[in-house]
Amino acid sequence: LLKPSQRDRIEVILVSPRNPLNIGAAARAMANFGFAHLTVVAPFAPNWLEAKSAIGALELLQKAKSAEHLAEAVARCTLVLGTGTLTHRKPEQPVVSLPDLAPIVQSELARAGRIALVFGGEKHGLTREDLSHCNLLVEIPTDAHQPSMNLGQSVAVCLYELATRALAADEDATEKPASGSVRAAASGRLELLAGLIERTMATSDYSPPPMREANRRDVRLLLRRLALSEKDVRRMLGLFRRILWRIEH
Amino acid sequence: LLKPSQRDRIEVILVSPRNPLNIGAAARAMANFGFAHLTVVAPFAPNWLEAKSAIGALELLQKAKSAEHLAEAVARCTLVLGTGTLTHRKPEQPVVSLPDLAPIVQSELARAGRIALVFGGEKHGLTREDLSHCNLLVEIPTDAHQPSMNLGQSVAVCLYELATRALAADEDATEKPASGSVRAAASGRLELLAGLIERTMATSDYSPPPMREANRRDVRLLLRRLALSEKDVRRMLGLFRRILWRIEH
Repeated sequence: LLKPSQRDRIEVILVSPRNPLNIGAAARAMANFGFAHLTVVAPFAPNWLEAKSAIGALELLQKAKSAEHLAEAVARCTLVLGTGTLTHRKPEQPVVSLPDLAPIVQSELARAGRIALVFGGEKHGLTREDLSHCNLLVEIPTDAHQPSMNLGQSVAVCLYELATRALAADEDATEKPASGSVRAAASGRLELLAGLIERTMATSDYSPPPMREANRRDVRLLLRRLALSEKDVRRMLGLFRRILWRIEH
Repeated sequence: LLKPSQRDRIEVILVSPRNPLNIGAAARAMANFGFAHLTVVAPFAPNWLEAKSAIGALELLQKAKSAEHLAEAVARCTLVLGTGTLTHRKPEQPVVSLPDLAPIVQSELARAGRIALVFGGEKHGLTREDLSHCNLLVEIPTDAHQPSMNLGQSVAVCLYELATRALAADEDATEKPASGSVRAAASGRLELLAGLIERTMATSDYSPPPMREANRRDVRLLLRRLALSEKDVRRMLGLFRRILWRIEH
């Protein structure tokens, strides 16, 4: 199993879950595999309260946070992993099959990164908007006749994989960042940059209003594809602030 | 994922599940990972009917069998795997951690065996009596603070492991038994032999009535530990029938 310090850098995020039983089941799987950080995005308030106050609710569920938007929930993370089964949609980011996830998680933790594992709602999974915040899509390999998994079960399967395989090989190497490794930009920093670029596009009349939604997603995805370091982001923030100032004055 | 012919030789068995939702969740995980054979032992009748007749119940659940005893449910299987987390009990058979199960399943399928994966009830898991029918105990590696998993989630995790890892390496090799391999005795044949040995013990005044229950379990476990072939069992059945005949006449 993961060492505590590694588990502490892995967050589980549920986007708009409807059923309080599923929230409880996700929390139970987290406790089973030793994970502690749960955030629920845009929960339906009565169900959220019901889940948190259920008799026997786990401590991690009582301590769970809620966030209005996914952007807020993943702000501190350097690698955001969406989960799902690819049936209807063509994803816009790289896809990795769950059994192949271990080396990716290992290298992210080795460079002192922080990882979010994001699960969509029971009905439709993650939306395109949700996916635009993800660096990678993790696919659970399921049968074509019944691809869609129950939320609590898919959380259990993903955490089992992480706990038993992602760090089995070399746990000590992840305690401190490898020397010479570059600090990755956190998702919140990328979001700040994306916002600035979007404003630049609007101010410079690059994107007409009907295109803004699509452009916003594209910029987000592009920035996540680039694997920017914190230093890159700092430079780009400076550049776009300068550009904006010039346009607006 | 497993090839259909391999999946056809894997059975999922739930012993006395109480909650119809958990029966449904187990069936859903089976469908997700492409397994079809479900047997429920000693179900609580109203819940069993409720689970089978639920709106949207999967075909495999509608076709699921019920059995009065675990012995009957595993009779055709040559390798019976109990599942659980080892907290309170000292198991009387070998234990294997779920991530290490693949080679065992592979070699059993390679010699044309049939595998049962047995899950206990929600409250207490498998009893000692249940475990006496198992060749091996498969342990899901969970956190010491919250070791006990939800039934539907533990089914999902075990089937994910089987589907993605147990047969990834060499699927074709399992289509026909390796030449020279010995046909394993099915659990039902071992049970027949155990019954005969038990009768011999009673008839020959070897076991006083208060010891019979414990002796029955011990004989079962011993026979499973020996990895008997069908030929071995045939010989032993002949021997004990002969012994019994001599004692009784």
